[in-house]
Amino acid sequence: MNKEFTNWLDQEKEKFMVEMNATLDKLHIPSMLRESVYYSINAGGKRLRPILMGAACEAFGGKLNKVYPAAIALEMIHTYSLIHDDLPAMDNDMYRRGMPTNHIKFGEATAILAGDGLLTNSFQMISSSDIYTADQKVFLLDQLSKASGLEGMVAGQHLDMIAETKPVDIANLEKIHQLKTGKLLTYAVTAGAYLADVTMEELSLIQSFGNEIGLIFQIQDDILDVIGDQQIMGKQVGSDKGNEKSTYPSLLGLDGAIEKRDSHYKIALSYLEELQLTNSMLAQLTTYLVQRNK
Amino acid sequence: MNKEFTNWLDQEKEKFMVEMNATLDKLHIPSMLRESVYYSINAGGKRLRPILMGAACEAFGGKLNKVYPAAIALEMIHTYSLIHDDLPAMDNDMYRRGMPTNHIKFGEATAILAGDGLLTNSFQMISSSDIYTADQKVFLLDQLSKASGLEGMVAGQHLDMIAETKPVDIANLEKIHQLKTGKLLTYAVTAGAYLADVTMEELSLIQSFGNEIGLIFQIQDDILDVIGDQQIMGKQVGSDKGNEKSTYPSLLGLDGAIEKRDSHYKIALSYLEELQLTNSMLAQLTTYLVQRNK
Repeated sequence: MNKEFTNWLDQEKEKFMVEMNATLDKLHIPSMLRESVYYSINAGGKRLRPILMGAACEAFGGKLNKVYPAAIALEMIHTYSLIHDDLPAMDNDMYRRGMPTNHIKFGEATAILAGDGLLTNSFQMISSSDIYTADQKVFLLDQLSKASGLEGMVAGQHLDMIAETKPVDIANLEKIHQLKTGKLLTYAVTAGAYLADVTMEELSLIQSFGNEIGLIFQIQDDILDVIGDQQIMGKQVGSDKGNEKSTYPSLLGLDGAIEKRDSHYKIALSYLEELQLTNSMLAQLTTYLVQRNK
Repeated sequence: MNKEFTNWLDQEKEKFMVEMNATLDKLHIPSMLRESVYYSINAGGKRLRPILMGAACEAFGGKLNKVYPAAIALEMIHTYSLIHDDLPAMDNDMYRRGMPTNHIKFGEATAILAGDGLLTNSFQMISSSDIYTADQKVFLLDQLSKASGLEGMVAGQHLDMIAETKPVDIANLEKIHQLKTGKLLTYAVTAGAYLADVTMEELSLIQSFGNEIGLIFQIQDDILDVIGDQQIMGKQVGSDKGNEKSTYPSLLGLDGAIEKRDSHYKIALSYLEELQLTNSMLAQLTTYLVQRNK
């Protein structure tokens, strides 16, 4: 990726983190629970979801400030899902991004509660915001709870855990990822566009675009697990192969997975063309998802 | 309690359970996760929160039907909190109401996800409802997320866990219970009154009333742990004493705890008097909270 783009990414991330920390600072949380929440919130990460939301909003002429409450809510949900996924009963991960996971650092009980709290208060970020109308709040809250609940991310995580013990075919793999990762990435761009007051037709197109980038993101994740540089990624590669998990490369071969990723990339770009957004940062972000090495 | 009142309680419970199951039936949940969710939703319980919400609404002349989406949301949050509280890392309970707890029956991973899902979709019950205005949804969602999150129930559960390892004084015990139990009970009556279109003054009084019944509920819980009938309660009594936990009877003596409960009962009734609701089912529910033996 060119330097200009990565600088932009860094700036967006920085701006977002300032906003998120300032917003969380307003909550009165018991000290140890607070420490646990801040630990995971500030444990790094690409902040891809908030940046996608901002880029989608700006691509349609909206103001970046408009997305922050919804973007903070989304990142809080993403963070809670990582804390709970890392738990011993789930993926049992001791490290994330080179640091001890939340339950290793604070104990399992506090980690569960930090996750529960981040999830619960994410909705409050939207409901208490003073920059959204009541109708906007209802739309954002409704879409967010659907995308992340029993018909969305939680269902995806459940199916993903089952898939670890028995192989799945490509159709089921795709379904799992659409639920587990795709719905929240789709929410990111849909909420961003919605907050720029797009038409229903534009909203529908951006939703389809979101579905494609969700798949691109996941296929690239699987590819990096095979060919990624452990040093750059800050996590162990080859972990999928180690546990016999079905992945795009394991089902299609590495070349087949790359081909599949690129075909979704083409479809994603075709949506952006239809929306006349090929010169937007959203388009550059799409390319980044294909080229990213961590 | 008189027979007429307990019949009414049973009927309210029955009507609510039909509504809640019908609403959950509309969700498309992967089969095993679904089973785990329904198991805990239908595992019994007093359904006190939904019944309180309905009674508060009707006391002010509102229609019972009006509370169902918000009452279902609240009971979903209560149910998720029980599933997570029972986990090995938390209270490590193997039985609840005489049945195996969720994680014993379905495994820890599924139990964690069932809890996460119930919590997430509770908000959707309100946001997707077709009987509330956007303003009503925002009020209900905002109050619910505040009452149950990092400044409410989750904070209370966290402080309660810390209190198990070191004794607390009466002021801290009260604070813990206000967060852990009181905020959701207060939400129950506040939301019910709100949905009956009460004045701001009435809303404020019912909120203060909610705070009192939250304390009554918890003190009675502690009292029943000392003098309750294991057979009637369906759970082990004396468990607080066993683990040296600070409770109202351990800090004030049994008589002191009873006295404290009764003084909160008096205050609760005085709020109802001010609201001219002493002849309501809400008043009878308040008396029930003092007299209940399970």
